[in-house]
Amino acid sequence: MTYCIGINLDEGLLFASDSRTNAGVDDVRRFGKMRTFEVPGERLIVTLSAGNLSLTQNTLNLLEHRARHGDGTGLLNASSMFEVATMVGDAMREIRKRDEPYLRDSGIDASGTFIVGGQIQGEAPRLFLVYSEGNFIESNPDTPYFQSGEIKFGKPILDRVVTPKTSLLEAAKCALVSFDSTMRSNLSVGPPIELLLYHRDALQVGIRERLEDDDPYLNQVRGHWNDSLRNALQTLPMPEWLSGEN
Amino acid sequence: MTYCIGINLDEGLLFASDSRTNAGVDDVRRFGKMRTFEVPGERLIVTLSAGNLSLTQNTLNLLEHRARHGDGTGLLNASSMFEVATMVGDAMREIRKRDEPYLRDSGIDASGTFIVGGQIQGEAPRLFLVYSEGNFIESNPDTPYFQSGEIKFGKPILDRVVTPKTSLLEAAKCALVSFDSTMRSNLSVGPPIELLLYHRDALQVGIRERLEDDDPYLNQVRGHWNDSLRNALQTLPMPEWLSGEN
Repeated sequence: MTYCIGINLDEGLLFASDSRTNAGVDDVRRFGKMRTFEVPGERLIVTLSAGNLSLTQNTLNLLEHRARHGDGTGLLNASSMFEVATMVGDAMREIRKRDEPYLRDSGIDASGTFIVGGQIQGEAPRLFLVYSEGNFIESNPDTPYFQSGEIKFGKPILDRVVTPKTSLLEAAKCALVSFDSTMRSNLSVGPPIELLLYHRDALQVGIRERLEDDDPYLNQVRGHWNDSLRNALQTLPMPEWLSGEN
Repeated sequence: MTYCIGINLDEGLLFASDSRTNAGVDDVRRFGKMRTFEVPGERLIVTLSAGNLSLTQNTLNLLEHRARHGDGTGLLNASSMFEVATMVGDAMREIRKRDEPYLRDSGIDASGTFIVGGQIQGEAPRLFLVYSEGNFIESNPDTPYFQSGEIKFGKPILDRVVTPKTSLLEAAKCALVSFDSTMRSNLSVGPPIELLLYHRDALQVGIRERLEDDDPYLNQVRGHWNDSLRNALQTLPMPEWLSGEN
């Protein structure tokens, strides 16, 4: 499994992803899900991948190969993030077309998802969710974030907190809390957690941090959040129909 | 969809369930998921149902019919909660056997789940999760609660708070917070929420409450929890590698 978050804020973009993949509980490995394509001062593109690892890896390999050896029509030459999302979808369609019949024969799920965000000079920062079928949607102020993979455990905190006005730093903390909730409930989502902050118009990575399992800040998040929630529950008043009880 | 929680505490049992079913977003109805079978002073049995509504309703109808008109081998004569869980599983198998081929022909999911708990004189309170196949598991101190239906959004708060030592009142508040998180994220889970508190050895219902959408206490939970989580995030210290930012 996997857990990825991309958030589009007025201040910029925030990305977070885990690094665990598994093919059954006895075959767990570490693979980062975050990839960047950067031309400092000109563009920054970030992809977060979820789903079948061979599909998402090969999609990225294809994109990377074309960016480096292509005819100038790759990611590094795209004139808009819309074009970038199209390229990611097309590349995924290509790989699926090649591999899917074989995977399906073995009953293997050959689907994958990309969260694709970034900024290209001349445009505002943009964020897309590319579906397994290669089609995609773009974030907007009503829905400023996308998740992929094991999305449910960590969604309530994002829903309660994140709006376009949220600061990058608050969003970073919120994303880590969302990861903490997810990792508690699903063992197949695990560290290292990669976190990337992008400041609007910087056109280069702001902060990229990798938090290992024993990271002191992750432990602090865990402890603080446990204490805060227990405390919030204790301070929640009893309803009238319960207050006569006991 | 549906959301149900059953919790087995040292103090007694707590049950909570929503009242929304849907067959597509254009066919949403209200159906309570909680049913009780009670012989005050002798036994209390509570069932929470999730899944295909015709399957779970007919299972309960069959159980009720046998309890009233049977040969003395129904729920009201079972000598243990283990026997009760077996009867629920068997009744579900009977209904599935009758209906499933027809449902499958139309591509309809014919699965269902029951959370079954209660106490019969001479036994401690017990809690079971009966799967669609009719087999079942029992709670234990390491896993004192079961959920069914849309379980993920509301699981983190239960995982962080609930142990067998949790009081019934704290567990009731926790369950309502868990419902609040779930209803925010999944429109197909909705009020009225039914809540039942059972005190160990009471052998009758303690409190049974039905919370409608505009219930003032549900609104209070919503507001308090939003404020508390926002506050918890604000008081979460920044990590060192972010504190130089902005």
